[in-house]
Amino acid sequence: MSVDDTKDSALLLVPGVRWAVARAGIRQSSRDDVAVLECAPDTNCAAVFTQNQFYAAPVLVAREHLQRRQPRVFVVNSGCANAGTGQLGVDDARRICTGTAAFIGVDPEQVLPFSTGVIGERLPVTRMLEGIGQCVQRLRPDAWEDAARAIMTTDTVPKGATARIDVDGQPVTVTGIAKGVGMIRPDMATMLAFLATDAAVEQSLLQNCLRWVVGRSFNRITVDGDTSTNDACVLLATGAAGNSKISSPHDPAYDRLAAAVCDVARKLAQAVVRDAEGATKYVTLNVVGGASEEDCLSVAYTIAHSPLVKTAFFASDPNWGRLLAAVGRAGVAGLDFQKVRLVINGLEIFDRGAVAAAYREELGQAAMAPVDLRVTVDLGMGDQQAEVWTCDLSNEYVRINAEYRS
Amino acid sequence: MSVDDTKDSALLLVPGVRWAVARAGIRQSSRDDVAVLECAPDTNCAAVFTQNQFYAAPVLVAREHLQRRQPRVFVVNSGCANAGTGQLGVDDARRICTGTAAFIGVDPEQVLPFSTGVIGERLPVTRMLEGIGQCVQRLRPDAWEDAARAIMTTDTVPKGATARIDVDGQPVTVTGIAKGVGMIRPDMATMLAFLATDAAVEQSLLQNCLRWVVGRSFNRITVDGDTSTNDACVLLATGAAGNSKISSPHDPAYDRLAAAVCDVARKLAQAVVRDAEGATKYVTLNVVGGASEEDCLSVAYTIAHSPLVKTAFFASDPNWGRLLAAVGRAGVAGLDFQKVRLVINGLEIFDRGAVAAAYREELGQAAMAPVDLRVTVDLGMGDQQAEVWTCDLSNEYVRINAEYRS
Repeated sequence: MSVDDTKDSALLLVPGVRWAVARAGIRQSSRDDVAVLECAPDTNCAAVFTQNQFYAAPVLVAREHLQRRQPRVFVVNSGCANAGTGQLGVDDARRICTGTAAFIGVDPEQVLPFSTGVIGERLPVTRMLEGIGQCVQRLRPDAWEDAARAIMTTDTVPKGATARIDVDGQPVTVTGIAKGVGMIRPDMATMLAFLATDAAVEQSLLQNCLRWVVGRSFNRITVDGDTSTNDACVLLATGAAGNSKISSPHDPAYDRLAAAVCDVARKLAQAVVRDAEGATKYVTLNVVGGASEEDCLSVAYTIAHSPLVKTAFFASDPNWGRLLAAVGRAGVAGLDFQKVRLVINGLEIFDRGAVAAAYREELGQAAMAPVDLRVTVDLGMGDQQAEVWTCDLSNEYVRINAEYRS
Repeated sequence: MSVDDTKDSALLLVPGVRWAVARAGIRQSSRDDVAVLECAPDTNCAAVFTQNQFYAAPVLVAREHLQRRQPRVFVVNSGCANAGTGQLGVDDARRICTGTAAFIGVDPEQVLPFSTGVIGERLPVTRMLEGIGQCVQRLRPDAWEDAARAIMTTDTVPKGATARIDVDGQPVTVTGIAKGVGMIRPDMATMLAFLATDAAVEQSLLQNCLRWVVGRSFNRITVDGDTSTNDACVLLATGAAGNSKISSPHDPAYDRLAAAVCDVARKLAQAVVRDAEGATKYVTLNVVGGASEEDCLSVAYTIAHSPLVKTAFFASDPNWGRLLAAVGRAGVAGLDFQKVRLVINGLEIFDRGAVAAAYREELGQAAMAPVDLRVTVDLGMGDQQAEVWTCDLSNEYVRINAEYRS
């Protein structure tokens, strides 16, 4: 179930990028589970991967290949994470790359593998290569939505977002897809995101752009605080738009492009939270008045990861004691509750050391009732702020994660 | 519900310490909800309090009083945490101390207040003082068990432990009680622990002893990772045993006493975990082979706080991918999964980079079936280790915390 099924408008094509999908029967025979992306020669690629030290075989191989060549092809599968599989899993990922490279006529190091799904199982390499063989004959510029579906695991909705801006009088497109219903879905998922633009952007600047964007989008969401073994986010720039190549962070075109990529990435990130396991609430945590952005983020994540706060969100319970207890243990040096304010959906609840004068329990319950909650904590220390998006903790979350393999 | 209701043997009296309880009607009229402890003159007192910056009024007042005088009297109530109550709450706590001091004939600064229960509500000071007045007429050395019941909030079992050792040929007793069903029960609880011994111990050494003990007991348990606003742990030493006063950490009697206090504190801490909200499993996390104790603790707490691992415990699911993903995000510098081993209840599951050769899913399910689980993670880096006790995350936990106020 998704908290909100608002569909984005149709995804705009990105000249220079083609996708195809196939049914390889990795886990379920009834749906597409392999997607292949091919991008034009001279496309630049930026990528970030999970920081988890228990990373999956495809993460190891993709990082290695990226250090040597610009990629031309991605192979993405759902149903199997190829994690915890040791050297055999690394060999499997390499065989996928070698086989795909042979089909398309590129170097194996120009192929990047991406997997999500069950941890500890081997990839069915032969069946997958059959599916990949079908894909390479069907590559199309308008298959973004098919790809968004094929990479889903227990996601309930495909996730895509798109933007168009103007660079040098040329229309430039940014389109992205993502999958994931938590920071980790250890059995059947984790987060992948593929973004592409037809803008021409210098390689190292593209990587800077992606890091900046991820810090403001995918790294600002949390469902359960668990970092995945397979997370990856990739940004391609094909250059097909014909703009003069963006090569300086001071170029106004860079700002516009980065803002557009960030807009697409935030929509995808927020779609992940809305589709989170068992979620019934979509919560924006807005921490202001901090002495530093780090302090604001500490407070936001401590709230976001508190099981007690999350169950109160689930219950639509204005349980401000739980919220402030989380603020108080976030480790903010010099925090003084005589200056702290708490506002939920516009209702002031706690004001400098005590419950707000006009606060009544009934007002709190009304403020907590909507599906979308905006919680503002003012630390009263400075002018820094940060925003994080999260969801509630429902008994459906426990059921999904406890009963999954039973 | 408690995971295991094993009763400790009867609590031994501590010469110099008396308790009494009364029904003040703070929240429920049907049970005792105030307890008063009085200790002999010249008793030394060590105490540690919550590190949460959003601490309750009684924590503020108790810390203040401890800086000025050795305490003679504790007043403990359940039903109301007196937290988030601002200056009015501080005034209420002071009135409790002043009134109690008048009843007993001590200085108000010799009275320490302790409260747990609902956050944001005021103490019913007049009704409480009535109850306290009844208590001071009934103080008895053998009321430890009554006190253990009176300080309960939504605990399902009273928690007490006791030990006897020999110092200078004198029998010395250590007895303690505790309440709490999580690191925090924001509405109706949090953790309090009162320990006492009749040994004679120099004051600053007693404080060192308590810090050492808490680091190996109450600070090694976690239910949900939420630090309370009201936590307190106190250790009294009345000196009534007549041993020559222990004044050096090199005195062998100090080691014996510290070990006995630690034994009592661990039993109480483990009783808190067994009675944790919704718990169906009691889990010992044993991390070995670390380069430092800090690394081992990071790994243990990351596992203990992962909702995905905790739901797998609940499901008796040998979901080793979730466990290793938690190990991998614990931030241990230089961790190499080629050296990591995972063992659950004696079954080797993961061995240096891949699933253990002899592992079968059926064996994993059998190993996870018992109520008591022992998870050993060998980091393969050094000879340091740490142990943490925790529980699972059940739908009962969500129900308790979501429906509490509905």
